[in-house]
Parts: sequence; C-alpha cells; structure tokens
Amino acid sequence: MGDGYAYFGPEGTFTEAALRSLPEVGDRPVQAHATVGGALDAVRRGEAAAAMVPIENSVEGGVPATLDELAGGEPLMVLREVLLPVSFALLARPGVSLEQVRSVGSHPHALAQCRRWLAEHLPGAETVLAASTAAAAAAVAEGTASYDAALAAPMAAAHYPVAVLAEGIADNPGAVTRFVLVGPPGTPPLPTGIDKTSLVAYIHDDHPGALLEILTEFAVRGVNLTRIESRPTGDRLGDYHFSIDCEGHVDDARVGEVLVGLRRVCADVRFLGSYARADGVAPTVPRGTSDADFRDAQAWLARVRDGRSV
Amino acid sequence: MGDGYAYFGPEGTFTEAALRSLPEVGDRPVQAHATVGGALDAVRRGEAAAAMVPIENSVEGGVPATLDELAGGEPLMVLREVLLPVSFALLARPGVSLEQVRSVGSHPHALAQCRRWLAEHLPGAETVLAASTAAAAAAVAEGTASYDAALAAPMAAAHYPVAVLAEGIADNPGAVTRFVLVGPPGTPPLPTGIDKTSLVAYIHDDHPGALLEILTEFAVRGVNLTRIESRPTGDRLGDYHFSIDCEGHVDDARVGEVLVGLRRVCADVRFLGSYARADGVAPTVPRGTSDADFRDAQAWLARVRDGRSV
Amino acid sequence: MGDGYAYFGPEGTFTEAALRSLPEVGDRPVQAHATVGGALDAVRRGEAAAAMVPIENSVEGGVPATLDELAGGEPLMVLREVLLPVSFALLARPGVSLEQVRSVGSHPHALAQCRRWLAEHLPGAETVLAASTAAAAAAVAEGTASYDAALAAPMAAAHYPVAVLAEGIADNPGAVTRFVLVGPPGTPPLPTGIDKTSLVAYIHDDHPGALLEILTEFAVRGVNLTRIESRPTGDRLGDYHFSIDCEGHVDDARVGEVLVGLRRVCADVRFLGSYARADGVAPTVPRGTSDADFRDAQAWLARVRDGRSV
Amino acid sequence: MGDGYAYFGPEGTFTEAALRSLPEVGDRPVQAHATVGGALDAVRRGEAAAAMVPIENSVEGGVPATLDELAGGEPLMVLREVLLPVSFALLARPGVSLEQVRSVGSHPHALAQCRRWLAEHLPGAETVLAASTAAAAAAVAEGTASYDAALAAPMAAAHYPVAVLAEGIADNPGAVTRFVLVGPPGTPPLPTGIDKTSLVAYIHDDHPGALLEILTEFAVRGVNLTRIESRPTGDRLGDYHFSIDCEGHVDDARVGEVLVGLRRVCADVRFLGSYARADGVAPTVPRGTSDADFRDAQAWLARVRDGRSV
Repeated sequence: MGDGYAYFGPEGTFTEAALRSLPEVGDRPVQAHATVGGALDAVRRGEAAAAMVPIENSVEGGVPATLDELAGGEPLMVLREVLLPVSFALLARPGVSLEQVRSVGSHPHALAQCRRWLAEHLPGAETVLAASTAAAAAAVAEGTASYDAALAAPMAAAHYPVAVLAEGIADNPGAVTRFVLVGPPGTPPLPTGIDKTSLVAYIHDDHPGALLEILTEFAVRGVNLTRIESRPTGDRLGDYHFSIDCEGHVDDARVGEVLVGLRRVCADVRFLGSYARADGVAPTVPRGTSDADFRDAQAWLARVRDGRSV
Repeated sequence: MGDGYAYFGPEGTFTEAALRSLPEVGDRPVQAHATVGGALDAVRRGEAAAAMVPIENSVEGGVPATLDELAGGEPLMVLREVLLPVSFALLARPGVSLEQVRSVGSHPHALAQCRRWLAEHLPGAETVLAASTAAAAAAVAEGTASYDAALAAPMAAAHYPVAVLAEGIADNPGAVTRFVLVGPPGTPPLPTGIDKTSLVAYIHDDHPGALLEILTEFAVRGVNLTRIESRPTGDRLGDYHFSIDCEGHVDDARVGEVLVGLRRVCADVRFLGSYARADGVAPTVPRGTSDADFRDAQAWLARVRDGRSV
Repeated sequence: MGDGYAYFGPEGTFTEAALRSLPEVGDRPVQAHATVGGALDAVRRGEAAAAMVPIENSVEGGVPATLDELAGGEPLMVLREVLLPVSFALLARPGVSLEQVRSVGSHPHALAQCRRWLAEHLPGAETVLAASTAAAAAAVAEGTASYDAALAAPMAAAHYPVAVLAEGIADNPGAVTRFVLVGPPGTPPLPTGIDKTSLVAYIHDDHPGALLEILTEFAVRGVNLTRIESRPTGDRLGDYHFSIDCEGHVDDARVGEVLVGLRRVCADVRFLGSYARADGVAPTVPRGTSDADFRDAQAWLARVRDGRSV
Repeated sequence: MGDGYAYFGPEGTFTEAALRSLPEVGDRPVQAHATVGGALDAVRRGEAAAAMVPIENSVEGGVPATLDELAGGEPLMVLREVLLPVSFALLARPGVSLEQVRSVGSHPHALAQCRRWLAEHLPGAETVLAASTAAAAAAVAEGTASYDAALAAPMAAAHYPVAVLAEGIADNPGAVTRFVLVGPPGTPPLPTGIDKTSLVAYIHDDHPGALLEILTEFAVRGVNLTRIESRPTGDRLGDYHFSIDCEGHVDDARVGEVLVGLRRVCADVRFLGSYARADGVAPTVPRGTSDADFRDAQAWLARVRDGRSV
C-alpha cells in the first residue's frame, strides 16, 4: 500500500492546507486528484494511505460528491476531521498594488464569500469566474489571466510566484470548512472522550415515519446529532438516505446501542467512523446514559435473568 | 420452607378457585389469609411456597392492595397468571326456591356486577351488603343471614351446605378477574413464546415527562403494554410509580433492552416476573425487534468495533 | 333545583370537612349519602347544587367509585378541588385516658396510615376494623364499640360526644386527600391563571400505542399532566380508558388544542372541568405555548392563507 | 410588472423545457438567466411574472442555489412544480454518424448519468467536460467543440442546427428532475386535493432536539413529509435550517395546525407555497386528521367552553 496521501486538488487549495496541517503527513508524498472520487479511489486501490476531502462548509453546506462517495462504493472510514477557517488572500503579480486591481478572478464560492470585502476595498472591480481558487492564482502568476488579481487560499502564495495584497479576507468571520481524512476500513481510533461518529442510514421504501424513527433511536439514548443531511438514493424522487454525525464514539455504550437500534429498524446502516472532534466540544451525557449507567443496568438485567435479584 | 399454598380468602371465593385450578396444587395444603398482605407475607416468611392473589378485574380495575404489596416490601415474583370468568351462583338454604327470594346478600362488587340480572330475575328483591361473597354464602348456610340468598362464587357451594338456585350469573359475559401466583424471587420460568413481563417503574421526582419517557422505551423496541397503572408513592399528591405488564419474556432481547433502558432513566425499577400468558395471545414482534434481529445487529456492532466490517 | 349540597358520608368524615371548608356552603343544607354514586346522583337529579366526593389520596391512590362515576353515566362537571391533610384524631369516651386504651377501631385505611404512631404511642394495642372512621367514632360514643378508642377525622369530635386523646396523628406528615366539588355541566369557572383541567380519554380498541399517542398530544403543546390513571372499560381485560388531570384551563389556547387533538384521535373524550388549582402551583409554560404565542402564530397563518405574508 | 417568464438558462436545457411544458407560457416572452438567483431576482424586481428553476434531482439531490435563494432574501412563493424525466439526446453536426463519434462533451452531471449508455454504445469514446449541456450542443453546432457529439436535453436540438444521433439516453430510467415555478408572494393556488406545501423552518440556536421536535409537529397531525433537507445558516458549522415539503395544502386544517405549531416552537418559519402535486400521489389522511375531524373537534371544544356540552 502507498504510504503517501491523496487529496482533492488542485494544489494550493484549502484541502491541501487541511492535509498539510496534520503532523503525520510531514514530508511523505501527497498527490492531488481532480475529483473527490479520484482521491478516495486512490485509497480504495491502496495507492494512498488516506485521502483528505472537504465534507461540509458552514456557508455552502454539505459536499455532495464526498457524501455520496462515502455512502456508496467500496467502504471507507473517516479517521480524522480538520476544520479550517474560510479566509482568503488576494494575490497578484509582484509589483501590482491593491489600487491597481480592476478585476478579480476566483471560484464562484470564493467570490460569494468575499462580496462585501470586495465592495468595500475594491469598489467597482469586476469579478471573473475561475474553475478553482488555485487555478485563478496560477493564471495570475503565469500572466494568462484576464483579471488582475486572484482570491485564493493563503497557501496558494507558496505554490505560485505571486504577491499577497491582502490576507484574512472573509465576509463571515466564523465561516469554516470541514475536511475529513478518509482511510481504508479498520479498527476506529481509540476514544478520546470528545469524539464524533459518522454513519449513513438507509430507510425502508415508502416508510414516511422513518426519519422520526431514526431520530428517536438517538434521542432515547441521549445522543445528540451534530449534522444530518438527506441524500437521494437515486432510485426515484422522494427516496432518501441520511448522512449523520453524532456525538460520541462507537465504543461508547450509548452510541453502540443506537447503532444496534438503527441496524435493526433501517434497511441498512453504514458505519463511517468514530474520531476525535476537532472543535473540542465535549458531548452532553444525560442522566442514565453514561457507560457506567449502561454497565450497571446490564449487570442488573443479568442478575434478574439469573434469579439473583428482583 | 412450607410446600403448601397461601391465598387471599376467605374460603369459597374466586381466589381459592383460581388457586385450585392449578394442577400442581393437587392435595397440597392451602391456607386462606384475611388480607392480600397476609397471604404474601406467608411467602416472604417461607411458610408457603406461593400465594394466589387477585390483581385486576375487567370491571373493577386493579387491586390496590396487591399492586402495592408487590411494589413495596420484600421482593416477590409472579410465577403464573390465572384468568377466571366473573360468573356468580345464587345460593340459598336447601328447600328455598328462586320465587321465594326477597333479598340477596353479597359483596358490593358482586351485586354491582349482577345488577341487571337481579332486576330481571328477582325484580323488587332487596340487596344487602356483605364483607365477602363467601361470608354471604356462609351466613345463608348458617341461617344467620338477614337475606334469603347469597350471590357467590360457584365454588362456595362446595364449602357450605347450600342449594344452587342459578349459575353463570353475570351482567357482562366477558367480565374476568385476573389472579397471580406469587412466589419468592428466583429464576423466572422459561419462555414459552407467549409470555408477559411485569415490573414497577419509579420515576425521578418532579419529572413531568417521565411517563412519556417510559412509554418511549417500550415503543422504540416494539414492545406492547397490556396493563399500566399509576400508583401513588405515598409521599405527596402527584408522585406516582407505574405498575406495568408488557408482552414478552425478560429473556427476549427486546424486553431485556427495555428493562436496561428503564433501569437507566428511572429512579428505580422492580422486576416482578415473566410468565406464560393465560389468554394465549401471541406477542406482536415488529420488523427489527426479534431476537435474531438483535443478535445480528449486535454481531455487526462487534465487527464494526473490531474493524472487521464497516 | 336544590340549593343544598350532597357529600359522600357518613357525617363526621373528612369529606364533610372538605365540604364545610368552602365559604359558599355556609349554613345551606348538606346531605350525607352512603355511596359516591348516591351523592353524585343527587346532583344529576337536581336535588343538590353540587356534591363533595373524594377523588384521590396521596397514600391510597385514586378512588375508583369517583373516577368511574365521573367517567360514565350522565355528565357532571368538577367545579373546585379541596385538599385536606390526612391527620387523624384519637377519640374515646369522656374520662378515658390515653394510658387506658387497649384497642383502637377505625377504617382499615386509617389504621394503615397511623400504624407507626400506634406502635409508638400505644404499643400492644389491638386494632379493630370498622366500616368508616365516623362509624368507629359513633360506636365509641354510643358505647357499642368493641374497642376503647376510635381513629377518626378531627371533625368527628363535633358530631359525637367524645373526648380527643390525641390530634394530628399521621405517619406520613405530607399525606393529603383530594376532594372535588362536582356540579351539573355548564360553563367552567373563569381561568385564574393557576388552573387544572380534568378529562377522560377513551381509546380505540386494540390500539397498543394509544397511551403514547395521548401523552404526545399533551407534550407537543407543552402541557404537563398532574394525574393519570387507567381504568377498565368493563368490556374485557386490557381495555382501558384514562382519567387525566393536566395543568391549565380549557380556555387556554394550548389546553384547547390538546383537547381538540384528543377528540380527533381518541374514540371519545369527556371533559370533566377546569378549576382553580388548590395547591397554588403555577403551570409551566414552555417557549412557544403561551396564549400570545398561539394568537401570533394563528394570525400569521391567516396572513399566509390570505396571501398577505409569506 | 413583466408578464413574461424567467428561467435558469442557458437556452436549450431541461429548465427551459420545464418552463415551456406549461400551457400558460404559450408565446409569452421568456428570458434565460445565468444563475438561479438572477432568474429569481427578475421576479423580485417585477421584471418577470414567474421563474422556473430546478430544485432537486433524484440522482444529484437538492439544488443548493435554489434552496438558499428561496430560504433567504425577499420572499417568493412556489406556484407549481414540474417533473421531467432525465433523458438525454446525443447531438452531432449533420452528416456525422454514431459510428464516427470518438468523443462526447457535456456537463459532468449529464456524463455521469449516461456513463453506462456510453460504455455500451460508444465504447472507447472520450468524454469532455462542458459548462452546460446546452453549451456543449452549441459548441458542436458551431464547430468550435473539441468533441464530436454533445449529450444534451432533447430540446437543444430545436435551438441549434444539429442532428439527433440517439434519444432517451439515461442509465437510470426512473431518474427525474423537479422544477418549481416561483412567483411573488400572494394567495396560494386553491387546493386540488392532491397538493404539497413547502416551507423553511429555522431552529433556535443550540437546540439539539429541534429536528425531532419539528418532525413531531408533523407526525402528531398525521402529515407526511416528502422532502427534508438541512441547509447551513452560514453562521457556524452545526447551525442548520430545514427545507421541507409535506403533503397537503395550507388551507387543510391539519397542515394549518402544523404551521402554527412550527411557528410557535421554531425561531422562524417561512412559508414557500402550496401547489398541486405533479406526481398525482394522493395524501394519506390518518384517522382523526381530516378537515371534518378538525371541524367536529373544534365545534365540540367551543361547546365545552360555552358550557353547552361536556
């Protein structure tokens, strides 16, 4: 198996930055892929140890390609999550000053997330769509761009011979993108006490109350969801599966019982991993749902069944 | 330990009939007790192998003394249930004919359950309250009664020198009384496939949603209730515990998980027994709640935790 | 119609005390009835303006006769509730001292509720069952009792020529009995802000989830229950209706919507009244469930339907 | 106000086909817009009577731009929905035969949805990404394409001088795209009996059980959902609102009560319209949730409040 890493490219985007934020990456080889599916297939084929892909953004929402690749195809497992603030740099050819910028190129999402900044600092500047933030930076560097500057990830400045005209650009200062490091299926990382579990629940056809049933399986064991998204099964309009993140680790008793419950009542459940939660928010554990509560209650049940105690 | 049986007397009532309906009683000694608590205490002290007591009636409802005795005090366990149709006999001294009956004595419940029969067959007859149906029969037999006939359990005719003027008397032909045979705590009888489980759930103080929470624990595992009664804790108005019968046996996976859930979220749970269901109604087992469903889902969870499958 | 009051007697019991605690009773005629049904029928026949009957006790639980009379027969309406502490007096013939008491007679419930007091203050005294606390007091006063003293309601001392040997007797100092003043159906008393609503919900046959459904109707509008009791319908074992008290007044928007919901999903609903809550505990009104919340939301819906606002 | 229609272009796509499928469009002017937001803003500014935009696809899922535009900005209202099967045509310059096609250009989604067809009928053909299916057709027609044929909507053949090499191309024969005709806010179309209602529910911050609460509001009135999607609020990761379609019309009593319930418990609710359901699937109306059931129950409540009936 390859010991390098794959990521959804091109080079110089936030996804590469997310990957390089991991100490274990160090100077091992990394490979950009043109699609999320390509990066994940590199893991499936054993050509990469793991792949970094974006999974959701606080402004744009879930990344369908990632959600659907994880839900279908050969199983994979989420090993880690990385959060990066959405904060752009304005890049130009060396020698160009901010005052000289009359047009800015970038990916539409980037332009949308910096609209107010542009209106304030570059009033009247034209915006031009590019395939990616990195592609805009490359075109500026190479002098092939039809625009004067590129809005790109800060790390693009390290890849291309450009000057940084401004940094920390973001209309919404709290905007963040969440990335996941995805590896082959295996034993989940050990619980840290502040973990998340990801899964996909497939419901039985024509079962209108299925989502309520799924949520009740979580609620009755006091497990909070942190993300839930419906995705079409592809069969017909109105057939969905649900991509879910919840608090806790699969080794937690309450999370385990939720998974058993989902597995029983759903048509299928795919476990996508348990991993340390990047924002460090500790789970809420309502009365009666700690591991000790489960252990005590199960010991009591064993005694009851054996006639040792009523 | 005594190898005889206790029952809530006096002799000649339906409770004795319920006890004698059990083949295992045979000619082992039986002992009537003046109170439900007295009969159950005979078991607690080891003076009787088990005690037969009434627990509910389709017309009168639950028997508070039985419910409270089982919920409090030294633990006991329900071993069996017996259903008897509520059907009275009209008893008089030999030689008295139905036409001569001007007054009828019995326990208020018995008179209430035969009101329409009396109005039709003995219009104008006066009714007189007695301490029990058997006491009325005894008074008639002994000639000390202030009434001409007694409404009593059919088996009273075997205890007292009386004539049976009419049988099968009941306004509501479906009326039935349910009795339970109560023994010391121990290993529950083996599952028969058509079983019931009885328990008492004590809720935390000042928890308005507690009953909804309790019912959800059953519903989420597809376990139907067959009886639920609130009983005061005795501390203050509005503090209740719940006496519950549900379908299934404590050895069933779904019933076990319900019990674990209740044990976790309630202040306390007392298991009262799992035993064959007298009416032979098979439980409903919704999709995903059979023992095989639990076993498969738990095996899947074990694989997930070990990294053998996602 | 009679302008006097009926009550469940005999004279000198707590029920009479509850009735006489109402200022409006004053010196209007009051009439004791031998049964709860008798007292309520006096109202049904117009012979009494209202009747006082016990409905629950913090130690003994609900009073089946009252629950069933209110649930069936000609409709009646609860106008008020009265709470009385359960606190007995020990009564004897004048000249008898506490030290001379060797036996005590009373209703079984009364003896049960004073067991610890008797063990401490009259160790070794025999207890004798009587038909009512007042009957025991009367027998002591008349000299026909087989016991030296009677445990009775304090007000029995006003009815019979007896001496009070001790007062405030109760093992459980918080024990209380709740009485309801029941009148003919009509417009409920105006809301006070601290009200209770009583009703009976009849479920459809063979509907195992019916109780969960009923509780959800309350929960989804944030209405807390203060009492819920199952009562048999009388048809067959396992068929129940539910006698329920909840916070709030039928004129409250949220209580009204609960009633509409119950009426829709239940086989039948009987409204038993809205009345001031005797313990003065204010209702909890969760976010979104006040009358103003309902009014605003309904005004919004009206605008949406009319196309005045989306 | 303009009496023409806007749509999300370019010309020759499925969205234009959806718009032209409406009889009322006839030969009134239609205007393509480069973005969903542009088409909807034309309605907001009064330059178009309504705009047709795609909202979900049975393979790709929801269209974020449409969902977010409807959820935010100046209110709009869905007037109709249109379903179109996803079925492509293979277009080439006149004179080119299927055998001669060595490369195919189209939008990535189109290529993805025809992958199996291409592998079977054009094994070895290269695929080239284009900005839209219509752009690929235009490039083929103009001779500027780097590929021999375009996969496009059938109606593109009417816009460009191209020959149709194959029709009805789709790997998943049931694949369908759903479009909505969006107009200014106003009175919803009259109920047809087979309607859908769309809305957006904004939850209070930090309220983990909010989705369960929302679903319960629907469930308790027996209203089925046909679509639910979470969308980020943009504030921070984990803050969502929910875009929901349900069965029924806002004029239905049960749908109205759901809306009132959501309005009360959510931070905000935006009504997006009630309109005839394109697939003709009649709603399920569980016992107790018809308009007549609501009317009867509300009439009963009015009588209860007035004292006319208990």
